[in-house]
Amino acid sequence: MQENYGLLRQHFEEIVDLTDAEWEQIAPHFEYRKLKKHQFLIQTGQPVECEFWIISGLVKSYAIDQKGNEHILQFGMEQYWVSDYFAFQHQLPATIFVDCIEDSEFFCLSLESRESICQQIPAIANFYRIKSNNGFINLQQRILSLLTLSAEERYDELLNKLPKLLQRVPKKLIAAYLGVSRETLSRFKN
Amino acid sequence: MQENYGLLRQHFEEIVDLTDAEWEQIAPHFEYRKLKKHQFLIQTGQPVECEFWIISGLVKSYAIDQKGNEHILQFGMEQYWVSDYFAFQHQLPATIFVDCIEDSEFFCLSLESRESICQQIPAIANFYRIKSNNGFINLQQRILSLLTLSAEERYDELLNKLPKLLQRVPKKLIAAYLGVSRETLSRFKN
Repeated sequence: MQENYGLLRQHFEEIVDLTDAEWEQIAPHFEYRKLKKHQFLIQTGQPVECEFWIISGLVKSYAIDQKGNEHILQFGMEQYWVSDYFAFQHQLPATIFVDCIEDSEFFCLSLESRESICQQIPAIANFYRIKSNNGFINLQQRILSLLTLSAEERYDELLNKLPKLLQRVPKKLIAAYLGVSRETLSRFKN
Repeated sequence: MQENYGLLRQHFEEIVDLTDAEWEQIAPHFEYRKLKKHQFLIQTGQPVECEFWIISGLVKSYAIDQKGNEHILQFGMEQYWVSDYFAFQHQLPATIFVDCIEDSEFFCLSLESRESICQQIPAIANFYRIKSNNGFINLQQRILSLLTLSAEERYDELLNKLPKLLQRVPKKLIAAYLGVSRETLSRFKN
């Protein structure tokens, strides 16, 4: 467990500097959780108590439309943060699902804890500022891709950006992420 | 001009508290700029020196695809922040356009200035953290809409969220935002 906390501290320190005293204030706010493949981290209609930092494993966040089709918002692997951020921030019931594609381990942080450490430790406020800003930029690029590129071009983009992730994600989920059928995806691969 | 700086301070203080001394450190980093309707704030291939806070007016940010079609990423009005954030953050040439739908006034903040005030003043780090997080949430909701809703449902959503903005935006631009023709949009309105 000490090792997992070490990984988390290292993740923060890739972006900001922390003293030992600051880290001792931060660490107790993170609660360890372990889930098996196919278990849910977040389910629609349920409260969203945490945002999650992935220690190990692989998850997907997705919505189900009125026709029952699954639309994948995000894949998340080691060192990714994941939640239903709208529901988490506004303390409303979830509107998306997050479940595990592999057995996974997480650290959970409540909204109250996040606000508290951001107010107490300026380096942490800067960490989440930079992380949120990077997340915002990634989503802006994804919207531009959705608006301007074909599914095949978006597949090439994904291969270039996240080659390691793609090796771990089943093909049918990549198809759901791109919004195409499994058959169409297999044509791209040639 | 004093009045414009007052508006900006008020905008920060809706989210965080600032002392007069802090404000005196912050304000000189913001440079005033005024543009006419149709003038460009950002053009593809050019450096992106600033992010912009809109004092008054209305802008759109958009990409042009390989076929020459315009895809609107965002409309921005009073109190909105706008930039090509990918290019701004990485100090790369712009890949989108931002131009004025109305005569507009802005405050410009360089990346160096933003980092400097965030490091010096924890309240400002928290301000941008919360703003970026809200922006991230909005984009996540927009992606969910793009993935799961029809153009007509997205139009209804836009009407509910931003009724005042929609009154000021020409119909052909709303059609470009939704990714439908002007004719299709006019059918939605019934």
